[in-house]
Order: sequence, then C-alpha cells, then structure tokens
Amino acid sequence: MKISRVTTSDQRFTLPDAAGTDSIHTDPKYSYAVTLLELDDGEFGTGLAFTLGRGTEVVVRAIEAFIPYVVGRDLNEIMPRFAKFWRELADESQLRWIGPQKGAIHLALASISSALVDAWCRKHQQPLWKLLLDMPPEDLIEWVDLRYLENQLTRKQALELLHQGEAQRLTNWESHEIITKGYPAYNTSVGWLGYDIDHLVRNCREQIAAGFGALKIKVGSPRIEDDIRRLRAVREAVGPDIRMMTDANQIWSVPQAIAAGKQLCDLDCFWIEEPTHPDDILGHQQIAREIAPLKIATGECVSNAILFKNLIQAQAVHFLQADSLRLGGLPEFLAVVLMGKQAGLPVVPHAGDMSQIHQHLATWQSIALGVEPYHLEYIPHLREHFVEPVEVTGGRYQLPRTPGSSTRLQGVSPTEG
Amino acid sequence: MKISRVTTSDQRFTLPDAAGTDSIHTDPKYSYAVTLLELDDGEFGTGLAFTLGRGTEVVVRAIEAFIPYVVGRDLNEIMPRFAKFWRELADESQLRWIGPQKGAIHLALASISSALVDAWCRKHQQPLWKLLLDMPPEDLIEWVDLRYLENQLTRKQALELLHQGEAQRLTNWESHEIITKGYPAYNTSVGWLGYDIDHLVRNCREQIAAGFGALKIKVGSPRIEDDIRRLRAVREAVGPDIRMMTDANQIWSVPQAIAAGKQLCDLDCFWIEEPTHPDDILGHQQIAREIAPLKIATGECVSNAILFKNLIQAQAVHFLQADSLRLGGLPEFLAVVLMGKQAGLPVVPHAGDMSQIHQHLATWQSIALGVEPYHLEYIPHLREHFVEPVEVTGGRYQLPRTPGSSTRLQGVSPTEG
Repeated sequence: MKISRVTTSDQRFTLPDAAGTDSIHTDPKYSYAVTLLELDDGEFGTGLAFTLGRGTEVVVRAIEAFIPYVVGRDLNEIMPRFAKFWRELADESQLRWIGPQKGAIHLALASISSALVDAWCRKHQQPLWKLLLDMPPEDLIEWVDLRYLENQLTRKQALELLHQGEAQRLTNWESHEIITKGYPAYNTSVGWLGYDIDHLVRNCREQIAAGFGALKIKVGSPRIEDDIRRLRAVREAVGPDIRMMTDANQIWSVPQAIAAGKQLCDLDCFWIEEPTHPDDILGHQQIAREIAPLKIATGECVSNAILFKNLIQAQAVHFLQADSLRLGGLPEFLAVVLMGKQAGLPVVPHAGDMSQIHQHLATWQSIALGVEPYHLEYIPHLREHFVEPVEVTGGRYQLPRTPGSSTRLQGVSPTEG
Repeated sequence: MKISRVTTSDQRFTLPDAAGTDSIHTDPKYSYAVTLLELDDGEFGTGLAFTLGRGTEVVVRAIEAFIPYVVGRDLNEIMPRFAKFWRELADESQLRWIGPQKGAIHLALASISSALVDAWCRKHQQPLWKLLLDMPPEDLIEWVDLRYLENQLTRKQALELLHQGEAQRLTNWESHEIITKGYPAYNTSVGWLGYDIDHLVRNCREQIAAGFGALKIKVGSPRIEDDIRRLRAVREAVGPDIRMMTDANQIWSVPQAIAAGKQLCDLDCFWIEEPTHPDDILGHQQIAREIAPLKIATGECVSNAILFKNLIQAQAVHFLQADSLRLGGLPEFLAVVLMGKQAGLPVVPHAGDMSQIHQHLATWQSIALGVEPYHLEYIPHLREHFVEPVEVTGGRYQLPRTPGSSTRLQGVSPTEG
C-alpha cells in the first residue's frame, strides 16, 4: 500500500445569498484545502481542511510542505501506529515553529491525515465508523495522540475507557438505534444572521416539518434586543419541544458575553456557542459561572487538544465542539473524545466537513463509548459537491455504508499522467 | 505618505554548526518572511516574521493575502489609529478563520505591521524607541489593541498606566542609564543543546569575559542528569554572580516539567523557560506552584495577547517573553506590556528578531513605565545580514540612533521597475 503521489488543490464554493453569515464571518465562501493521496495500486484517499475562501491558498501551501514526508511511505507501516506518524509531522523540526499545533500548518495536517484515514478505510472496504468500531482497544489507542495531555488522561486511563466501552457495548450493537434509525441532526442553515426575521422563522417551520428536532440560531447582532426578538419569534414558531442552540461566533468580550448570556437564560436556549474568543480559557470559565444554567459550547476554532484539556480542567465548557479538520485529524480528535468521556462531556462536532466525516466519528463515540447522541450539526450548502453527500431523512443522518470517510469531492480524483 | 507597493520575500540563513539547536528544534535555519513596504516618495519600511526554515514560504503566502488591504493606503491615515487598522486586518472576515490570531496568518500580520512601523519611524526621522517615548499617552493608546482583554485591562486603565509612567518619568530621562550605558543583555548563543560540555563552558567563560552578566543554557536532554551536569559545569565556570537562565523549549509534559523543575531548584537558575507546551495555561499554573521558588518564563510561542492574559490571570508565569514578531506586531505587544505592568510582571522579549526591534521596545518599557531592565536576549548569528545590526558592548545594547526599527536586511530594498 505504497503512497505513490500526493497532490493538493484549492476548492472554493459560492454559497446562496446570506448563507453562512454570522456576527464575525460576514461573507464566507465555504472552501477546502484538499489533499489527494494516491496509492500505487490506483486506490486513493481524499483529505480536507475547511476554510472560508481567502486564505485557502495559504493552507494549500502548508499541505505542500508536508508532502515530502508522506510520498513513498507505506500505509501498512504508517496506520498501525498512526498517532506516532502524526506526531512526527506535527513536530517536524522546522515547520513546528509556525504552529505549534495551530493555524495554517495544523489545518494542513488535518487535510493530510484525513486523506490517510480515507485511503485506509477504502483499502479495508469499510466505512470509517465501522472500521473504528471493529478496532480492538489495543489497536485504536495507537491512533490516539496523548502528548501534553498526560496530566489529565494517561495512556492507561485512555485504554481503560476504550475497554469499558467495549465491555458495556451491546452485543447486538448493529441493532443500535443510531444505525437502524440514524443519528439525530440539528439544522444550522435555518438561522444565519444575514436572514431577516421572516426568512428565519419560515426556515425553522420548514425544517421542523421535515423532521428536525433541533435548530441553531446565530446571535451577536449589534443590539442584543434584535437577537432576543429573533429567538422569541423562533421559539413561538417551533413550540417548546425543539432544541434551540444559539451561536455568537466570538463577537463578545467577556463582560459582554456575561451580560448577553444572562439575557438569553430566560429564552430556553440549549447552549450558547462561542461566547468569546476561543483561546480565552479563563474567560469561558468566568462566563460559565455567571450565566449558569445556560450551557456553553465551543470548539470550531479551538486549535488543539491542549486547549481542550484546559477548557475541560477549568470547567469552562459543556459541549466540546471539536472539529477533526481544525484539530489536525483523528489522533487529536480521538484524544478530545476520550478526555470528554472521562470528564462526562460529550463531543458534539463542528461541521467544517459538513459532517461528512463527523457522522462517522459521532456514531463511533456514541456506540463505542456510550455517549448520548446529541444532535449533530447539519449544513446542506455543499451537498452537490460531495460524491457521497450526507443523507439526512426525518432529521436523522442515515449512516453511510460505502468504504471510506465520505470526503470525496466531485471532480477531485486521480488523473492520468 | 501613500503606500505604493508591497512585496514579500523568503530569506533563509544557514547557521554555524549546532547553533540554534535545542530539545525540540534540532536543525533550525533562522529565516524571515519579509515585507518590503514602499511609499510613493521612495521611502520604505521593512517588516519581519521569524521562522525556522521550512514553512517560511507558507508565511510569505499569508503576507501576500494581506497586501491588497495595504497598498494604496496612506500612512498618515493608518498610523494615528494604528490599532484600529491592525484589528481590521486581524479580523479580515475570511482570513480570520485560519487563525484567529495565531499561526501563519498571524506571523504574516507581524511582518506587515512591523513594516508599517518601520516606515513611519523613518518618515519621522526617529528610532522607534524615541518615537514611542515622544508619543503622548492619548496618541499611544491608539496603537494598543485591547480587544478581548477588557476583563483584565480596560482602555481607561491602560491609559492610566501610560499617564502614571509619564508622571513618574525623570524629567532628564535622556540621561537614563539605559540610554547612556546601554540596555543589559543576556547571551543565548553560548548554550545551544548541540554544543558539548567543553564547548559550552568555553563559550560561557568567553562571554563573561566580554562583559555579559547573564547567560542562557538549553536543557531538556534525554536524561535530566545530563542537563544538571551541564548547568553545574557552567555555574562552576562563571561563579555565583552571573544570571543563568534555562530553557526546555516545550520538551516536557506537565509531570515531567514538575519533576525536572524540582531538580533545577537547587542550581540557582534565574528561570526555567518553556517547561511545556505554550498553550497549556493551567499546566503552567500547576508547574509554577510545584517548582517554586524557581520562576517560569514563556512567550516565544504564545500566539496572542489573549493567551498572555490567561497566563497572567492564572499566575502561571513570571517573565512574559512576548515577541512582537509572533504576536502580530506592536498593537498586541504593547497590550501585553501594559497587562504585565498592571500585574507586576516584566516583558522580557524573545529575540526572534535578534532583538533588532526589541531593543527599542524593551527600552521604551523601562523608561516609559519604569520596568526594571531585565536582561534582553542576545543572539548574534544573523548580525551580518542586517543593515544596522544591534551593537552589544560590555554586555549592553548600545541604543540605535538612526531612524526606523532596525529591521532592514542586506539586499532587501526597493528595486527599479
């Protein structure tokens, strides 16, 4: 399974009017810095790093910097000790400086490492969720990077969590509701900040009718009164039984977040997401204390597992929105899942991948570790661009049965020559 | 003062054998992603981001992404409200995703923004330290970015600190020892980890003879006994009155750092630098508690002022090694200095710029705010590549008197055409 060729490309997709807009990202263009990894037998793997348009070229350049370390290697050598190989790339002695474990270089590592995983699944003819579920704990631990996390989760403890999950797993886990009925989804595309209130309410009504049990509404308007008005209108339209997530996308300072959070407390919001800058560990801690019982979610811009460790230790967050495309790939994502399991905090992934990969990973988390299947984010804007787009029916992800991690993009495949 | 042209280049310099080596960076090649900013009257400014060789091209690409926002602008419009302009670049609605305020995009911002400062100083015919000292607090506060820091330092508090400093400043501050005798330096180039113990001791003896009062020794050898042996040999060679800094460059986990720190406590070390990963706020807090009275320095890889705020709030660090080339430039660096002043913690900058810029900034901190002039890092390996290299005589930086921020590189200047 020798890797014969690795190439990268810059893929940008125009969104419908006002789609994707929030308090900080006013004109996003969903994009991927793509890694195409070819094996010598013609099989290939596709890896992704999510970006918002401008800057994708920077990540593409960073992917190119990693290519010499991947080409010529054998998947059969790399993947049994995947975390070790991943750490070699993350600690490349010169590239590391422009991180470490953050920014463009780490997004590039996410793209490269997810291509390795996709190719490995395809060679094994398994969808990623099934491949992970079939791996014995002693094998899976070799996919988990615990560097710098030892004071929170040792390798021994991580292995125990995997063993406990395996012992408690139903023997007939293939009849698990997640597999038979699907993984519950929440719809983010109803509530972009650029939608006026009528548009917002109409979207919410439509998606509830289509079977969704949870929706996300962007907040962080220049006047908090406008946010409250929008949230009230949505709650009135959808009734009391629907989960309503809110998302401020980092617009607030800590004092602003506390003031806003207190006002949102009465509105039956499931969580407030990204109340302030993602690096502000103690800021989140303070906000969490002040706005309780309103819960906090963050993660789409949390660069690495070390920052997640700090958020967990500080009791600063309730939902870990880890994104394997932000974190550098599975070795770090799995570490966050295991730290979360230990602390009683679920990973509810951010959908930078439009949940193409995260439908697999959320399924694995719930079945392998017994974590309640919280709603998984759904954003349909890029469906047409994926070869095997996620399928959400009646508000639930229908699990993919084809080999791979569902990352293949239309028009991105090996060419002759 | 219109900006007529902005170009960027990738400058890499080979170091002498084993120079620059530490526990993590085993083969560095000191490099700069350079911004050359030309004004319509022929004047120009040079900006730098420090890198270690591979990956410089990624930062260069990120600089290119900012160029459209700078070309055609007027320095007279930008610089009086420099922090506002800086924040517009830091929050560019699409580029922000590949940070925020970290990694390649933030290094690029450092390069761009330091070019603006250099050009501004040159237009005003002042060295940077003098220009800063001459700015009234109401003007200087417009160069300070306090976004996301409000819960630690408000604009009002920051302005008060500047006013207090001005009130307490000697009226004859031009006769300050820093200006007349120079700013004390510590020598890092004596103690690279790749130097054997004889080489190390010989270097230390030579530099003490040359007038240095402080030295830095790299630690983090595979066996801590080797570090201890090296430190003991140095202490024996230089006597009890020399400051001996130690630097682990992030090699240790938190438990390892605690164990190592306890062993270093007896060796009269001035600080232990980067005991673990720079993002581990609570890890540093725990280490600081466990290894006291040994003090902690960190900052060369601390990406932004928000992380510094957390380190300060957590009482996790004693010396703030902010680097204006890591932080994105002066608006963030000045914010860290002011947060440090408020908390009683000095900024002792990391010399990614070989202290070309930081000699100005450390001088400003000490004279403007009355901060004790701790030793400023000295690394001479790139002297020949700068047009106006730092001058250290008798272990003290001799302050530059020529206009600018001392960032100009040999061979990097506007060309015809």
